[in-house]
Amino acid sequence: MKVVTYEYHGAVGVGVLSKDGSYINPFSLSAETSALGLLAILEADAAEVPLKTMEESIPLREVKVLAPIPRPRRNIICVGKNYFAHVKEIADQGFDTTGGRGEAPEFPIIFSKLPDCVIGNEDDIIHNTAVTSQLDYEAELAVIVGLPGRGVKKSDAMNHVWGYTLINDVSARDVQARHKQWLLGKSQDTFCPMGPIAVSRDLIDLSNTEIKCWVNGELRQTGNTASMIFDIPTLIETISAGISLYPGDIIATGTPAGVGAGLEPPQFLRHNDLVEIQISEIGTLRNKVKAIS
Amino acid sequence: MKVVTYEYHGAVGVGVLSKDGSYINPFSLSAETSALGLLAILEADAAEVPLKTMEESIPLREVKVLAPIPRPRRNIICVGKNYFAHVKEIADQGFDTTGGRGEAPEFPIIFSKLPDCVIGNEDDIIHNTAVTSQLDYEAELAVIVGLPGRGVKKSDAMNHVWGYTLINDVSARDVQARHKQWLLGKSQDTFCPMGPIAVSRDLIDLSNTEIKCWVNGELRQTGNTASMIFDIPTLIETISAGISLYPGDIIATGTPAGVGAGLEPPQFLRHNDLVEIQISEIGTLRNKVKAIS
Repeated sequence: MKVVTYEYHGAVGVGVLSKDGSYINPFSLSAETSALGLLAILEADAAEVPLKTMEESIPLREVKVLAPIPRPRRNIICVGKNYFAHVKEIADQGFDTTGGRGEAPEFPIIFSKLPDCVIGNEDDIIHNTAVTSQLDYEAELAVIVGLPGRGVKKSDAMNHVWGYTLINDVSARDVQARHKQWLLGKSQDTFCPMGPIAVSRDLIDLSNTEIKCWVNGELRQTGNTASMIFDIPTLIETISAGISLYPGDIIATGTPAGVGAGLEPPQFLRHNDLVEIQISEIGTLRNKVKAIS
Repeated sequence: MKVVTYEYHGAVGVGVLSKDGSYINPFSLSAETSALGLLAILEADAAEVPLKTMEESIPLREVKVLAPIPRPRRNIICVGKNYFAHVKEIADQGFDTTGGRGEAPEFPIIFSKLPDCVIGNEDDIIHNTAVTSQLDYEAELAVIVGLPGRGVKKSDAMNHVWGYTLINDVSARDVQARHKQWLLGKSQDTFCPMGPIAVSRDLIDLSNTEIKCWVNGELRQTGNTASMIFDIPTLIETISAGISLYPGDIIATGTPAGVGAGLEPPQFLRHNDLVEIQISEIGTLRNKVKAIS
């Protein structure tokens, strides 16, 4: 199942995308609940009162696609340094702020982004030049939690995954370095493009899914989910050991090599740059950079 | 003004505490809005439709006091290493995980706690012994944001502060060290006792307010808000430079010396320990530790 959160005639809706990707079957939702996006569907499922789609269909080309969960209920949980080639590139270029020297982390590095920095496909990433001169992209597969849980074991972890979306974990490298902990460098307004759509877990083969990123049409990142240092069950077991997970929680699983900071010399984002990240089953998440000061 | 969020006859209410501290004048609120606690009052104020209190009065002794904002809308923003004596104690004892050697940080260290780990006065701090063997306390003054803002300057920052409460920034030192970034070590379920009440900003003199912490009646922490390395206007300017602040945002301003990890030898919390943190104008926030495995 592919799910789209969208705006149509001024109202937010959530619907299932048709097989050919041309139209949407909306779920039957109140205006208030619709604003939650996919979260409304997940919470209804978790409460065992699943929502139904209506007969009505809306052409995809007539809607504005929004982030699957436009405003998550809490921070987006993120994983740092989860692809070895990326660990190495940031160490080589002097951007590792966790004291690493290019070795794989022994335990997952977990941080978060404020929920208010989420934007959708085609929305602008604001580059506040007064705050950062090292704006960077990170293409990531993001897990969307379906069922709540605490103390979830690896063997059971995938049952708590509803599905996936894409996240661009936009990062201000200088802000990350200045403040040691990464919250500010990762949570500036607009720093979390998400989408374009969400797909249920059966549609992604974690043992072989390519993730790519282009800047202005130039391929910068290519990775495969098979290369994660800590796989998704391990991440879920680690996080949920003492932290309750809830439907709609989002866990971004780390970025492969090829970020701007990892290039030689580093190439940071600038006004009007177009960043596109892609997993073929999910689609392409496109965002332009808009500089302000 | 002193504001209490409470449970009374099974319903959540928010009210103003009388001068003598013996009774509460409740705000007139719907059941749904009441559940937001103080946040309902702040959002109404920011929308310029301030709420009024009713004639009715409820004796404080008849209510269960809840956290002022039982479930913040997003992560609690926290400041690390903001009192010099604390910076030094954790470096001396080998607990500095940001690579410091006892020197004051050049820029504020900003991290966050998940909003779901908030508990109220007299609620138990759960010590999950399978996750941590280094459970620690941190008494902190917490700022409660009143007016929204982005790019707030130091000179204007206090206008965005509604008031204050107390936070115990409960921390699992071993988890902080293992995962480099602090989210997991700071966000385990129940790791954010808050309260007991909230006070408007006129009631706290930042140039001279004592903050104290006792464990089982033994005084462990004594600090004064005058000793913050980065004062509250600086913290607000730093955070809001590129991150929009909203009413009800909470910024915990760091802990003074005397945490368990800073003692020689370190003394971590154990089952049945009672932690009490206090600022006289806000009261005493009491929480017991309950071990599970």
